[in-house]
Formats: sequence, structure tokens, C-alpha cells
Amino acid sequence: MAEKSEKMKARQPRGFADRSAEDIRAVDKMMATIREVYELYGFEPVDQPMVEYTDALGKFLPDQDRPNEGVFSFQDDDEQWLSLRYDLTAPLARYVAENYERLPKPYRSYRAGWVFRNEKPGPGRFRQFMQFDADTVGTPGVAADAEMAMMMADVMEALGIARGDYVIRVNNRKVLDGVLEAIGLGGDENAGRRLTVLRAIDKLDKFGPEGVRLLLGPGRWDGGKEGEGDFTKGAGLGEAEIAKVLAYIETGEIEANEGVEELAQIKSLCAAAGYDDGRIKIDPSVVRGLEYYTGPVYEAELLAEIPNEDGQIVRFGSVGGGGRYDGLVSRFRGEPVPATGFSIGVSRLMTALKNLGKLDMSDVVAPVVVLVMDKDTESLGRYQKMVAELRKAGIRAELYLGGAGMKAQLKYADRRGSPCAVIQGGDERERGEVQIKDLIEGKRLSEEIADNAEWRAARPAQVTVKEDELVAAVKKILAAQAEERSRGK
Amino acid sequence: MAEKSEKMKARQPRGFADRSAEDIRAVDKMMATIREVYELYGFEPVDQPMVEYTDALGKFLPDQDRPNEGVFSFQDDDEQWLSLRYDLTAPLARYVAENYERLPKPYRSYRAGWVFRNEKPGPGRFRQFMQFDADTVGTPGVAADAEMAMMMADVMEALGIARGDYVIRVNNRKVLDGVLEAIGLGGDENAGRRLTVLRAIDKLDKFGPEGVRLLLGPGRWDGGKEGEGDFTKGAGLGEAEIAKVLAYIETGEIEANEGVEELAQIKSLCAAAGYDDGRIKIDPSVVRGLEYYTGPVYEAELLAEIPNEDGQIVRFGSVGGGGRYDGLVSRFRGEPVPATGFSIGVSRLMTALKNLGKLDMSDVVAPVVVLVMDKDTESLGRYQKMVAELRKAGIRAELYLGGAGMKAQLKYADRRGSPCAVIQGGDERERGEVQIKDLIEGKRLSEEIADNAEWRAARPAQVTVKEDELVAAVKKILAAQAEERSRGK
Repeated sequence: MAEKSEKMKARQPRGFADRSAEDIRAVDKMMATIREVYELYGFEPVDQPMVEYTDALGKFLPDQDRPNEGVFSFQDDDEQWLSLRYDLTAPLARYVAENYERLPKPYRSYRAGWVFRNEKPGPGRFRQFMQFDADTVGTPGVAADAEMAMMMADVMEALGIARGDYVIRVNNRKVLDGVLEAIGLGGDENAGRRLTVLRAIDKLDKFGPEGVRLLLGPGRWDGGKEGEGDFTKGAGLGEAEIAKVLAYIETGEIEANEGVEELAQIKSLCAAAGYDDGRIKIDPSVVRGLEYYTGPVYEAELLAEIPNEDGQIVRFGSVGGGGRYDGLVSRFRGEPVPATGFSIGVSRLMTALKNLGKLDMSDVVAPVVVLVMDKDTESLGRYQKMVAELRKAGIRAELYLGGAGMKAQLKYADRRGSPCAVIQGGDERERGEVQIKDLIEGKRLSEEIADNAEWRAARPAQVTVKEDELVAAVKKILAAQAEERSRGK
Repeated sequence: MAEKSEKMKARQPRGFADRSAEDIRAVDKMMATIREVYELYGFEPVDQPMVEYTDALGKFLPDQDRPNEGVFSFQDDDEQWLSLRYDLTAPLARYVAENYERLPKPYRSYRAGWVFRNEKPGPGRFRQFMQFDADTVGTPGVAADAEMAMMMADVMEALGIARGDYVIRVNNRKVLDGVLEAIGLGGDENAGRRLTVLRAIDKLDKFGPEGVRLLLGPGRWDGGKEGEGDFTKGAGLGEAEIAKVLAYIETGEIEANEGVEELAQIKSLCAAAGYDDGRIKIDPSVVRGLEYYTGPVYEAELLAEIPNEDGQIVRFGSVGGGGRYDGLVSRFRGEPVPATGFSIGVSRLMTALKNLGKLDMSDVVAPVVVLVMDKDTESLGRYQKMVAELRKAGIRAELYLGGAGMKAQLKYADRRGSPCAVIQGGDERERGEVQIKDLIEGKRLSEEIADNAEWRAARPAQVTVKEDELVAAVKKILAAQAEERSRGK
């Protein structure tokens, strides 16, 4: 045994998090619903490993100017650099390029998985998080982009988010490129400044027009005043250019170009399918942070107002998005391979659904605990048989495996949230009986009961039944508890 | 567009693999079954991230003498070393230690997840693979180990593996320690040699008694003769010591010690619960490779004979195992925290189940493809409505999104394995009709039909129905196909 002084501290690296039973169950339930929508649209599951060659992932992160470029990397024993994927799109592009000949085209696929960002963690900002993506590779037509937007809307509704409480906002990078060209930022030499302008526009939701104006111009202090908080360098545009960009964001008006034409097509396709009722909207301020987008971009936004981490009521905002990335697969193929797809931020969407009360997990019942009153092998065998019988009837059940007495065992059952505990001491054994304690009812009885009528109506918190009636008696208690839950008591 | 000569090669790092739709669905189905058993036993999900501080993981891998000690590691920006987890047990130990006070004890939990080994990859040996673990922390009693063995047996049966086709083999590291002491390998100074002996014993299944004899003595050539294949250094034991070890492996006989006593208890607990019918057996050759085990160890073995990668019929072997690791959590707590658990090798078990025909996925039906005959927005809207109606009826359906003509579209549908294709050209549109091609029946008809009776019984491979009968007609075709599948045609 290690000395107290020698022991290691149990701690996690910053930005990584454990998941509780509640979170895991909620995510599983949510993902099953999303998966069903993807499957109905004809998408097939396929997935890639977490590790890829660093150069295969490319450098498309918004924070690519940071050290390590936002990814976790390490060298293989043959000196080649490997990285943990930072999204699911770059690995999919590698996969499609590698298996191009044998895949049906257009190729619709979906995948869920963990991605990693070597970034500064913060509240709600993790270095490992889960995404759930759908992609269509091999078709240049915007019908594929329109389908993505419609599928995102269907996902929102399948999750129980009411129509009007969400919107799929659509824009086009080609339109944004037109704006950038109009203010003199065309050409390869302006690639860096273009990105700065795009990211400024992307912040409209967060900072409002005034914040965007600062980011397009001299820069912005997080605290609102010079010297307060962190400083974000601006794009350094002049007043006239800033005005043009802001006018575009506000009105969406720009000279006709390919991007504008594509947006018009998406709009009429969505209208023809009946999604023009506020579910899908063209919005000139949508940018999406990743550098690889080449055409339509889209974003799912929750309009519902939900308490944030600080308890303020705010519009929840984006829960996912994506766009067309015609260059990603082409990098490997040396021929055009158009593609479009979107990504759902799983933890963020789960947080929203929990807040909206759309992830009710009350159907998950904790196990029945069979107490261990005698510890000889024969008695343990008997208790073991009881849990086995309960399990055979589909009831979660566990044998208490600690060393404590009855009081501590009941405390354990309580901590587990068990619906009931089964007890058989020597006396009961002699009479061929078992005692069952209804722990939910017992808790209610032990609390102050103000209303005498309620007291009389209460179920008995404890019953004694014959051994062979154990399963039936437990079932009865569980059914009564389920009924009470459904009545919201 | 990149020049052909500049394009990047789409390739994967050695030992990492993509997963197909079939594999993903099979694993999901299998894991749902395993999860159900774990839940019935009262285990709760909890999971940890893939990245931990390197020192928190410890050095317990069988190959710890290799460079990098078998793990993938990288430095954080504060210079601390991080590693990808190599199993799910070490991170769980960190988690339990960190949350010890608020967890119910004994604490039963389960988790599935990817783990990483920085090892030389080989056939069926990956550097990223999935495990599905269950652990009980906080009880020293072997009733917890017996429960683990019984739960593993229940998992095998829930997966449809027949009784007699699997066995859970149980041993105890303390018994093995007794054997090692008896041959003079007690004490800290012999830790390295003890491990070499244990690993030799662990190879009994693979190399037989003669192979183990070589590994206990001078060493073993993979090719069978000196100079053939790789050489594994032996433990360097003398003849008398080797004989003692082999005698123990063969008879299991050894002087009474704590380990022998524990095994006897496990045996009677399993017998009391009726698992002594060949499902759970005490077996002196079980070792398990990881260094952190301190007491009972167990292994689930499939006895069924299955073709291996080279087509030879062999006993499938281990699909999972585990044991008691009383020191892992204690490292962090500075007080005894006993624990036991097991891990299922997900890919390996899936391979076995596929070979045994226990993962029938024929209920997954590919999507109906609605062909695109006219590409104006109005027509696309009509096709879009058709797929939407099919989906509303719970039928997977997709709009063809490529640019090709009818023949290529039908070829695409065929490649997708679609049950049927829906066609509406201008003529059908005028008559308010749609054509539905039964692609499964069509394929059968196009193959040679020897039997005239069969020919007459065949369904029509194509029907034309009114637009509003589309869903009903597709349902009828799908039902007929499902019936044929169930008849094994």
C-alpha cells in the first residue's frame, strides 16, 4: 500500500470531462432519434478512426494561427506525424478518396464520434467533444445542399423542438466572396484578411453590428473599453468598406453572382417541399468558421430562450451547421469531387434539449437491491437466486456486495435511488418469506405529511410475501411507482 | 484544382481501420444486448475521456519494455505529458478516486469505448480498438468476482452462444504467486522474471505445453526450429522448476494458500447459483496479461470451432476477461480500495458472432430510390414530396442526386441494394401515375429461371400505380420481399 504522502493525485487534464449515467443515457436517446432521421433519408453509417496522418487532415481550423494549429499531434515510430482528428469531415474526405471507385455515387453517409481540439478550454468549451455528421459526396447540385437543410429541420422536429423554436439559416460562401471582392479583398494575397473579415461577420450574433464594426476596423476589446479584457485584432478596413459589409449583412443585397443564383435555387427547392414556412431561411450573416467551405453554408439555430451557465435567459443559438466543401476530397483525387454535409454539436444540443425538457429519462429505473443478511455461501446462493429471478423477469436487480449491516445497506439502496429493497433474515427464511421495502413510498412517508387524506391513501411502504411471490410483488410495486411518476406526483 | 502530380495520397496510418455500415450495425446490435445484461445486474453507465495524464494511467501493459511503453503520448502546452488511454480500467480508477466520496459503494459501472495501443499492428491486431467493460469497486469479497464470472456467462447466452459453446475460466493470481514462490521467484527482486513466467503460462492455449516449456526455459523460436522466425527470450528456469510449473498447470494442485481458498469460495458461490454446469470452470492456466491484477482473474472463451483468417478451423478462444485489481484505485487514495472487473474485446467478439451467424442484419433494408427524370425545380419538388411521403410512412427513401440518366440511376439503385425504384417521367406525370420497379424481383427474373413453375409464381417486377397509391404499393413490395427473406429464398 502506498504511503499517504506518496499517493498520486487523481486529476484530469484541462478541457476533458467524464460523463455521468444521466448524460450518457440522454445522449444515447438523442442520437438514436437523429440516427433514425438520417436513416430515413437513405444515409448509411460509416466511420473513421480517431487518428490520421497530420497532412491528410489539412489545416482548416479557425484557430490555425495558434501554436500546434489546434490539433493534438505525435510522431509515429517511423517519424511520420499523426494527429487526433479535429472534426469528422477531414477523415471522411480521406475515406471517400481512398474508397472512391467502390462507393455508390452520390454517396450519403453519417457518423458520430469524438473529435479533439488542442485549444484553451473554457466554460462549455472542451478539448474532446462529440459530433454527429451527415454528408453527401459526389454531387455538385445545390439540391444536395437543400436536402441537408431540410434534413436538419426534420432532425429538430424529431427531437421535439417545436416549429418556430428553431430555424435553419442558409448562406453561400460565394456570395460572401462577392462582397469581399467588392471591397478589394479578392486574390490569393488577401486570403488572410478575407478570413478575418468572415470571422468578424460570424460574430454578429454574439457581439451585434457594433462589435462587428470594430472587428472589421481597428479591433475589439472584450471588456467593451480600451484596455479591458482581451484584444482581438481587427481586419483594418476603412469606413467605406465597413459600411459596404454591414449593409450587405443587414439587407443581404449584392450584385447577382453564382452564389446568389444558387441561394435562389435552394430557396425554391425548399419552398417546393414546403419548408418555406420559417423553418429554412436565407440569412446573409451565416459564415461558419471552417476554412474549407466553398459554397452554400447552413446553420441550425435554436430560437428558444434558455437559461445560460450564468442563469441569464438567452437565445440558445447554434447547435450545428455545415456547408459545401468541394475541395476536401479533390485534394486526394486530383479531380473535382463535390461534397456537402453538416455536423451536430452533440453536447450542446443535449444541453438545449435538457433545458427544454425534451430528454425525459424517468423511464430508467434504478435496480432493486437484495440485501445480504447472512454471509455463508448457502445464504449468498439464495440471495443470488432472488436477483437472478428478478432479472429473468426483466427487472434490474443487484445483490448488495459490501460488508455493512442492514441500516447501511438500506442507505446504499437509497443512494442508488432503488425502487425497493428485498430482505430475508433468518426468521423470514424459516417462514419461507421475504420482506420488500418500497423505498420511494417509504421516503415519502418519512417526510412530513401534512394532509391526513394523503396519509390514508398511501401504499404500505413494506410488504411481506412468500418467497415464490417475490417477482410478482416487486412488479406490483414498480407498476405503482410508474403510475405515480406518470401522474407527475 | 490541384495538379495530378501535386495530389496527396489518401492513406491511413498502420493499425487504424475504417468501419463499414455492416460492421457498425453489427457492433451496435451486439453492444445493445451486452448493455441490457449489464443494466439488469444493476450496473450504471459512466465514461471517461480518451486522454489522461500519462502518470495517472501507470505502466501496466504487457509490452512495457517496448519504446514508448505501448501508449501514444504527447506534451500539453504546460509541458505535462498526456496519453491516449490503453484500456478503460486505468481511467476508471482515476475517476473513482476523484469522485470517491459521492459514489455509492460498492460502485458498479460499465462503459464502452475506444482504446489505443502504440504497438506493431498485425492481422486482426489494431492500434485502436473497442472494449466494453463492467467493474465493481469497493468490495474485497470474492462474491463480486463470482458475480463478474456469472455476468460474463449471461452475456454469452444473451448473445445467442449456446451453452457448451463457451466457458468462463477462473484462476487466481495469488495461486500463481504461490507457485512462483515455490520455485524461488518470490520477492521484489524477481518481479521481472515472475512476469516472464506468467506470460509463458498464458501462452499454453497458443503454443501447447512444449511451447510453454521452452518459454519457461531457454526461449522459443516462432518458426519451431533454431533460427526460424522471431526469438522470444525464455525465463531461464531449471528443469526442476519447469517441471513444477507444468505440473501445476496440468493438475492445478498446489499447497493451500489464500488464493486457493478464494477459488474454492468462488466455485461454491457459482455452484449455489447453478453455474457449475460447465459454464464456469476453475482453470490453473488462466493468467491475463496485464500487470495490475492482484487476485481472481477470469476469461471468457468461445469453444466453437470457427474458420480463422487463413481458413483453418480453430477454436475461437478468448473474447474477453478481467480480474481483481486492488491496487489501481488505492494508488490515488492512499487507502485500500478493492476492485474487480472485466473487459470484452468488441471487434473480436463481433467477428466470432458473425462467423456463428448470430448477427443477422437482414432486417436493415436499403432505401427506396426515387429517380430524377426532370430537373426543373417544380419536378424536383414533386420527387421531393414522394420521398417525404415514403419517409413519413417510416420507409427509408432517397432522391437520386447525381447528374446521370435513367439507366445509370437504376444502376446506382442496384449498387445501393435498394428494394425498389420509383420513376415518374413526363408521360406518367400527365396521367398522374408513378412506376415502381421491384429491383430484387427484377434481378431474379433477369437471372436464368430454370423452373417454369417458379416463373409463373414470380411477382411482377414492375407496377404502375396512381400517385396517391405510391406509399401503399411500395409497402406491398417491401412486405413481399421481407416474406421471401424470412423464407430464406
